[in-house]
Amino acid sequence: MKNTLPSFEGPVCPVPINTRNQIVMGHGSGGRMTSDLIHSIFQPAFSNEALNEGNDFASLQMTGFEGRSGRLIVSVDSHIVKPIFFPGGDIGRLSICGTVNDVAASGARPLYITAGFILEEGLEIGTLQRVVESMKNAAEEAGVSIVAGDTKVVEKGSADQVFITTTGVGWVENTVQIGGQYARPGDIVLTSGTLGDHGIAVLSARGELGFAADIASDTAPLNHLVETILKSAPHTHVLRDPTRGGLATTLNEIAGQSGVGITLEEDSIPVNPVTRSACEMLGFDPLYMANEGKLIIILPHEEAESALTAMRSSRYGEQAAVIGQVEADHPGQVLLRTPFGGTRLLDMLAGEMLPRIC
Amino acid sequence: MKNTLPSFEGPVCPVPINTRNQIVMGHGSGGRMTSDLIHSIFQPAFSNEALNEGNDFASLQMTGFEGRSGRLIVSVDSHIVKPIFFPGGDIGRLSICGTVNDVAASGARPLYITAGFILEEGLEIGTLQRVVESMKNAAEEAGVSIVAGDTKVVEKGSADQVFITTTGVGWVENTVQIGGQYARPGDIVLTSGTLGDHGIAVLSARGELGFAADIASDTAPLNHLVETILKSAPHTHVLRDPTRGGLATTLNEIAGQSGVGITLEEDSIPVNPVTRSACEMLGFDPLYMANEGKLIIILPHEEAESALTAMRSSRYGEQAAVIGQVEADHPGQVLLRTPFGGTRLLDMLAGEMLPRIC
Repeated sequence: MKNTLPSFEGPVCPVPINTRNQIVMGHGSGGRMTSDLIHSIFQPAFSNEALNEGNDFASLQMTGFEGRSGRLIVSVDSHIVKPIFFPGGDIGRLSICGTVNDVAASGARPLYITAGFILEEGLEIGTLQRVVESMKNAAEEAGVSIVAGDTKVVEKGSADQVFITTTGVGWVENTVQIGGQYARPGDIVLTSGTLGDHGIAVLSARGELGFAADIASDTAPLNHLVETILKSAPHTHVLRDPTRGGLATTLNEIAGQSGVGITLEEDSIPVNPVTRSACEMLGFDPLYMANEGKLIIILPHEEAESALTAMRSSRYGEQAAVIGQVEADHPGQVLLRTPFGGTRLLDMLAGEMLPRIC
Repeated sequence: MKNTLPSFEGPVCPVPINTRNQIVMGHGSGGRMTSDLIHSIFQPAFSNEALNEGNDFASLQMTGFEGRSGRLIVSVDSHIVKPIFFPGGDIGRLSICGTVNDVAASGARPLYITAGFILEEGLEIGTLQRVVESMKNAAEEAGVSIVAGDTKVVEKGSADQVFITTTGVGWVENTVQIGGQYARPGDIVLTSGTLGDHGIAVLSARGELGFAADIASDTAPLNHLVETILKSAPHTHVLRDPTRGGLATTLNEIAGQSGVGITLEEDSIPVNPVTRSACEMLGFDPLYMANEGKLIIILPHEEAESALTAMRSSRYGEQAAVIGQVEADHPGQVLLRTPFGGTRLLDMLAGEMLPRIC
């Protein structure tokens, strides 16, 4: 599942059938199978208001505490990326940025991070030092403090080098109302930049491309970009970072949460030429590739231009673009209009495309 | 490391020497080697006020937020216990109780939990369901909500069934000041019950005892017990749950944080007869065995009796006992007075006694 559970509608889905009734890689894809696992196992057990909103963060009304009138925002992500170092990032930077971005996507200011380390016996101390240094630098860039941690060690072969689970805590005033459930017909859909780079960078680091791709992961903390967006577009409805499952899966989640349709203009979606050709050679669709430093923004038509200008003038937003709009038609569905005028349905990622990507 | 890092004093310790300069099981013991790893790798990188207080929770002053005058408490623990089901508990119950207890040990009311799951490909869905059901029940008993989650899946052989990292968020009013740094000479040391049961229960589940031990883990949420204690002993200085490294390691941490000495009366420390005989046969010391449902309480002499009475009349506290006192002498050291009048030094756990215990 992504950070919180998709809102629960209708009857409990069966656990996705697989021959052995066992966990398969697809259950961690962030796509349809992950969603099915959530709805059948986690959601029925843990169901509560914050969880059921289905965002990548939990929004916690601080009622019951006199004098406090805001919301605490918490978000969790476990990081298992393989290899742990890749062009443009590493598991340490990823573990900070992934969680900072989920908290920031609520409109909140990320403040604190906790980190749980699961280390494999035999891990080089120098490797751990590089990962920790990278976490430190990412946290400083984001302006968050790593306030609590825990370390466990398992026998060689019981884990893969290092897994890092981070939880982020932030604060947002009650005046800010941003979430996947707030997309409205007429809204404009923007991206902060090119899509699919992280996935290709990790594949390239694995040597799975079969050729050298000069592409770096976009892994970055986006909380400062979010502040910029909200200054220029104070009525923003949705912010989300399209990680596992990519743009297509993220927009399907939002379409479902808000009960709206979304139509994208294929030729307006920015994709790095290297990423595009790598995807073509591998038979992947960049719209399903993971991103770790991009935002999807959904906001009222009137504020689209100012948001676009503000993003383009700021770090991590230079290649921002308008990519589509929200409609009342085909609720819950995401359509892609091709340059030739045809349209095709963009469903959630079905199985697992790229395991161990984040 | 335990949940937050022991306060940093003096020069950075070298990483504990081992022949390969690699992570070894002892780095996860919760004892001396864990402390050395923290001081040489994590603390220098992440150093900040909340972290450096060295408690099992981070205490976050909500300054900068008008009208709020309390502290947010956050705590994180990764759970890797093997086997995942054992007498008296399982990894699910452990993952909720361990974190609830660290938050409650600050005097705070635990409110919210996030959970990051790392699943091994091939895990039986039914096994995951049992674990999740157990988390649900423990959360209900504690009165906390699991508000955010994340699931990742790794290839068969890259993890061991299921690892769960939980972060707890709680709130405490500024009038409450509880932490390992507040122990004072003259204070009394209490335990909420028998020590070492969890460790022996897990060993027994592994079949490593070589005999049948009728002992169950004490895994339990202690936040309600903490409320009871604070009602009857409002000036409590320290609360802590002695998990990895046991009573001896926990008291060494506190003695170091507060710069005081602690002396225990060996024959007043409650140990379950089965646990005692199992430890004797295995050559273990119950004072170093992990507990998952016990509290160590350090408070002013005047409030010891009322705290004891309150604990004994409440669930999880029936076998509470006074076990020692805090002194100005031998600061940073924990002494054990034997029934024969002699005393011996109780140091931190040196290496790893029982891997995969929590």
